[in-house]
Amino acid sequence: MPSLLELSADLGQAMQAQGWQLALAESCTGGMIAESVTAIAGSSAWFDRGFVTYSNAAKIDMLAVPERLIAEHGAVSEPVARAMAMGALQRSHANISGAVTGIAGPGGGSALKPVGTVCFAWAMRGVENQGNQIVIETRHFEGDRTQVRQQAASHLLKGLLRLINQSD
Amino acid sequence: MPSLLELSADLGQAMQAQGWQLALAESCTGGMIAESVTAIAGSSAWFDRGFVTYSNAAKIDMLAVPERLIAEHGAVSEPVARAMAMGALQRSHANISGAVTGIAGPGGGSALKPVGTVCFAWAMRGVENQGNQIVIETRHFEGDRTQVRQQAASHLLKGLLRLINQSD
Repeated sequence: MPSLLELSADLGQAMQAQGWQLALAESCTGGMIAESVTAIAGSSAWFDRGFVTYSNAAKIDMLAVPERLIAEHGAVSEPVARAMAMGALQRSHANISGAVTGIAGPGGGSALKPVGTVCFAWAMRGVENQGNQIVIETRHFEGDRTQVRQQAASHLLKGLLRLINQSD
Repeated sequence: MPSLLELSADLGQAMQAQGWQLALAESCTGGMIAESVTAIAGSSAWFDRGFVTYSNAAKIDMLAVPERLIAEHGAVSEPVARAMAMGALQRSHANISGAVTGIAGPGGGSALKPVGTVCFAWAMRGVENQGNQIVIETRHFEGDRTQVRQQAASHLLKGLLRLINQSD
């Protein structure tokens, strides 16, 4: 399995080949993805900004996630992940964004959303009158808090790579 | 030397003892400090949000850093670090904030600001008609990109602990 650093290096090459900028919106990973991306020397050429929206208020203020989405679906939900990814595009100059919100544990789980439940969204800014593209996914990861966060970070980076490669 | 995780755990205890919320504004550390803080289980009780303002545009948009400060002093400067820490308080519900902007390398250094130059600011929201408190510092760290980032993250966390302990 490639490491976060290897995935980030691959992402950097793909982003620079497109001449694109990246924005990240992280809840449960808490900056782990931005840290990994910026560990790559020269990442300032393609990484614009990261929103570490840990609290609900942060998701609402920083990414314009509608409060009612959080009330209706919970902070860990596909509608909120989608709103986070769209907000990251709206509130940045990025061409592509990735968002992650999940339950890393050990607390916070429920029967419906056990620890390890993570919702993802990836968004690509539309060009030439095309709308934004968006991909949404929910995954369940095994392991402790660190393992859930690392798997979530890895999955988000892989999804960005997939979306960029599909755009060619 | 305490690890980032040990410092983050100590910070969590100090924050919870005060009932305070934290906001972070990171440039060169790129989310490393937010990642470390949110590695602590239960950190959602005291960590509000993080601004990973990697580009100049991100510093201006997300933290209201005046563009002329960046033009006059450079993104790696005490005035910009100060504006980032103040912006993190203004754009959050946090009681205390920490900001870091530096040159992690390998590129980007100059005679005046060599690789390893990092500017810090810590801000504490004023209570009862007192103004905000702010502490500013520039440090020069040795080592490669990873080592500079880790030393910067460690120093920022230690500064937060010092500011909280002084407030008692």
